[in-house]
Amino acid sequence: MSMDLLIEKIREKNNPSVAGLDPKLEYIPEFIKQASVERYGRTFAAAADAILTFNKELIDAICDIVPAVKPQCAYYEMYSWEGVRALHETIAYAHEKGMYVITDGKRNDIGSTMEAYAAGHLGKTDLFGDPASAFASDALTVNAYLGTDGIAPLTSLIQNNGKAIFALVKTSNPSSGELQDRHLEDGTAVYAAMGDMCERWGADSVGKFGYSGVGAVVGATYPEQLAELRLRLPHTFFLVPGYGAQGGGAQGLVGAFDQNGIGAIVNSSRAVMCAYKKENCDEKEYAQAARREVIRMRDDINGAVQNNR
Amino acid sequence: MSMDLLIEKIREKNNPSVAGLDPKLEYIPEFIKQASVERYGRTFAAAADAILTFNKELIDAICDIVPAVKPQCAYYEMYSWEGVRALHETIAYAHEKGMYVITDGKRNDIGSTMEAYAAGHLGKTDLFGDPASAFASDALTVNAYLGTDGIAPLTSLIQNNGKAIFALVKTSNPSSGELQDRHLEDGTAVYAAMGDMCERWGADSVGKFGYSGVGAVVGATYPEQLAELRLRLPHTFFLVPGYGAQGGGAQGLVGAFDQNGIGAIVNSSRAVMCAYKKENCDEKEYAQAARREVIRMRDDINGAVQNNR
Repeated sequence: MSMDLLIEKIREKNNPSVAGLDPKLEYIPEFIKQASVERYGRTFAAAADAILTFNKELIDAICDIVPAVKPQCAYYEMYSWEGVRALHETIAYAHEKGMYVITDGKRNDIGSTMEAYAAGHLGKTDLFGDPASAFASDALTVNAYLGTDGIAPLTSLIQNNGKAIFALVKTSNPSSGELQDRHLEDGTAVYAAMGDMCERWGADSVGKFGYSGVGAVVGATYPEQLAELRLRLPHTFFLVPGYGAQGGGAQGLVGAFDQNGIGAIVNSSRAVMCAYKKENCDEKEYAQAARREVIRMRDDINGAVQNNR
Repeated sequence: MSMDLLIEKIREKNNPSVAGLDPKLEYIPEFIKQASVERYGRTFAAAADAILTFNKELIDAICDIVPAVKPQCAYYEMYSWEGVRALHETIAYAHEKGMYVITDGKRNDIGSTMEAYAAGHLGKTDLFGDPASAFASDALTVNAYLGTDGIAPLTSLIQNNGKAIFALVKTSNPSSGELQDRHLEDGTAVYAAMGDMCERWGADSVGKFGYSGVGAVVGATYPEQLAELRLRLPHTFFLVPGYGAQGGGAQGLVGAFDQNGIGAIVNSSRAVMCAYKKENCDEKEYAQAARREVIRMRDDINGAVQNNR
């Protein structure tokens, strides 16, 4: 139960970061795309093949450095069901390599429908009477605008199967404040009220590090709220997007961590996938460039967190 | 642009309702499942085959009565990528039969990621330099907790390609009020503030019936809010779940419609798919039972709306 599995993997690697796998074709080196197109034509099957090749080599190059990957569903769905097959295979491959997988789907719905998402992404599906794994990820991002009903179907997977969720609290995008920063009648900001709900939903799944299986997404682009929420939500682990390409730096992140240096995992997607473009190295070196970037990122974050303790 | 295409189809059929396609295996008649298992074993491929057979026969039986179908992504994702392929084929088949398709995914994310969802579900994906259709639906449900950034990528598809979205405003589930009914400092309920954002996002896509391409999801289970929001959001078309199996009756729906009898489309999923169970007829008659149910539903809703004018 709880966030223990992820926190253990973070401690093993001494690395509180996660590599986002958002493989738009434009991020993928030409030589990979050419090989896939030669094999399958200019089809979604070729796109899926290129994505999977790209992801697997990235995973090979970073799996001893980074504890987790976070595939973003949108970048697979845009390549139709063939892309979703590549998502399935990416999750399986990351597991083979011992990585923790956070499926970034921001799923949300009424209770009966959330049961289907829970079964599909984290649990088991009833397949003609037998339980079967569909995507079998370790954690799923969710949007909790619908309240407790949309979270309850995930609770037993969290409490009994070591699964975790991350609910959107204060997102990293520029317009996140339009609703999230507004204040309720009692003076609480909407994001803080959402955070309080995460604490409540996680109350029965607090693990040995003090964190529950119900985490929160809080953007690196809002360092003040990050620090405020760390204090307000002592049992809620944070998934922190917005470092790197979205503009948040390591210094702004330190508030996400507790006095033991835990409490958050920081995501970077584009900066890792496209490190070869930034380095301007041979595109065939993309996986090694990604490795250099995740090492740089680990040291950058650890340095900032250490300095702050 | 706008909601015109959907409203025209509703008027052609004189039927403001949509059939939800949420094909859990337990809803599918045994004879269909047996045939799929004989062909593919007890696999996800068999589940997808059964789902597609079930959906196609349902569509055949109702397409002259009902203007639209609403497949719910969760019930396809729970059967892995094979299930998502069945979603793809269901959308294509419904289009062949002239139906309008609302993909119920409640997708949400930051701008760059919403572009991927927009391309995948409503628009075109850049496939090795050429535009290609992934799922090519007509409308997508979204969750707008992230504000304008998460909606903007959909705007040009709405304004230029006749696509539509429905943002969650007041959802049909019992706990929807936990966040949505709370009041902001200025006294506005969160759901009303979300509704106001829909009006704003739709301001540039109001069509000939007075409704924009940015609709709202408002549950039949909350008739008061439904009527309140109809008055508050004059250009926002409503997708209304919660009729039938979730407990909302036709009388509670009337507030969703304007003085011209338009303004909303009412969803029913389980009551249509499982009509054969309720009728207790031969399961081989499931499609005809569904047809009887959608006719009953149409007349029930139209009767209530007429009486109210």
